[in-house]
Amino acid sequence: MIRFFVTSNNIFDNTIRLCAEDTKHIHTLRLRPDETFIVCDGTGIDYICKLGERSSGTVAEIVDKQSSISEPSIKCSAYMAYSKGDRLDYAVQKSVELGVHEIILFESERCVAVPKDIPKKVSRLQRIALETAKLCNRGIVPQVTSGGNLSNVIDKVSAESTSASNLILFFYECENRMSVKEVLEQRLLPPFKSEAGDAKSVSIITGPEGGFEPHEAEIARSKDIATVSLGTRILRSETAPVIALAAIMYHTGNL
Amino acid sequence: MIRFFVTSNNIFDNTIRLCAEDTKHIHTLRLRPDETFIVCDGTGIDYICKLGERSSGTVAEIVDKQSSISEPSIKCSAYMAYSKGDRLDYAVQKSVELGVHEIILFESERCVAVPKDIPKKVSRLQRIALETAKLCNRGIVPQVTSGGNLSNVIDKVSAESTSASNLILFFYECENRMSVKEVLEQRLLPPFKSEAGDAKSVSIITGPEGGFEPHEAEIARSKDIATVSLGTRILRSETAPVIALAAIMYHTGNL
Repeated sequence: MIRFFVTSNNIFDNTIRLCAEDTKHIHTLRLRPDETFIVCDGTGIDYICKLGERSSGTVAEIVDKQSSISEPSIKCSAYMAYSKGDRLDYAVQKSVELGVHEIILFESERCVAVPKDIPKKVSRLQRIALETAKLCNRGIVPQVTSGGNLSNVIDKVSAESTSASNLILFFYECENRMSVKEVLEQRLLPPFKSEAGDAKSVSIITGPEGGFEPHEAEIARSKDIATVSLGTRILRSETAPVIALAAIMYHTGNL
Repeated sequence: MIRFFVTSNNIFDNTIRLCAEDTKHIHTLRLRPDETFIVCDGTGIDYICKLGERSSGTVAEIVDKQSSISEPSIKCSAYMAYSKGDRLDYAVQKSVELGVHEIILFESERCVAVPKDIPKKVSRLQRIALETAKLCNRGIVPQVTSGGNLSNVIDKVSAESTSASNLILFFYECENRMSVKEVLEQRLLPPFKSEAGDAKSVSIITGPEGGFEPHEAEIARSKDIATVSLGTRILRSETAPVIALAAIMYHTGNL
């Protein structure tokens, strides 16, 4: 079913106000009066709607509402280093399909392509996140933001993870002791339950084309962040976050 | 370390004959005499080589050999329906990174873009598989072939799976009873062991942009092939095989 996103201040008792672009889109679809569509409030509630009377000017009349069934039971934040060309486009699109909660971009030492105009890049990727969320049945639009450099990111995730409830995984291609499977089996009981001591959210940190410098991995380790491997084959920078998310979603019963 | 692939008839007692293109590539790298590179025979053996004497015309002198450490312990065949634009480029590249054994393309009812020149398409995708295998440390180059239509593919996998040793998964977006996790947990004991009754290889079948027709899923079911879900979010045609492979590799300890 076709899907639109609005902010909650556009939702009234029986109707929803859509933006001009979505209104135009709905009219071009030539829906029959009995056909329904979904409007999401971006916090996980799906409103089943039908077209309102044209004379009233109302586009979306609420017929029913329900919790979105497509949101995963675990909250994943993906911290991705800037990379070349359209690699982040791909990584953002696939991460949203997999159920990522938010995406934070950052700069690290081996980044070869930090955009000159970061707000423009973030805005472009946010647009990709929105379009993907509509098509893959998400109940929220994952937010894309800029997080500064790797140190800023490590400080931020460490500060947010004072309890054991957030698991932080730093994917490092020179790590050969600890696999993602070992860490998830230790920290996320399968099937995923929110038990004491069991992480309720996961933050993943992945590098640019050339990976991380050894001293960058040391910064992570010094903050008690696990450095983790994704196997013996070398994954490209845009593949790594997607496969890490797939592993987490699989492990927690969200695939 | 840089990596090349040759066929076994180019491997002699102490030397390996490289093709003109690889020879040219090696010379442009300006390797020092003590620097080594890897030549794979495409069956899982890595030959550690150094540059031969220029005067002898030998490019690769064998220093040592070892089994490739990057090949997964499970053999996955990915049957992918033809899809639009560069979607298969992406699916092939990521599948090779994940450790796929072979890729077979096929036509199904909702395919909107079956290439006019199939040998040309296969050859282009084989080139992508080769370049990806070099970069991600594979010990083999997964073969890309054309498998006809869905009925041909189902007949082929069914015929190859007379024993219980090959698990066949047909990914169907209208399936909501059986998740990939449930099937893998029933059929592939974690950690993956080649025990009696436990599948030793997996074949995955994924559809085009519009998915499969209900009667296509029925054909699969009539041959005792499991129809399986990849979760409540709708994955694009190029994402589904990659995520299915990630789930299998994660489950079997190959990530």
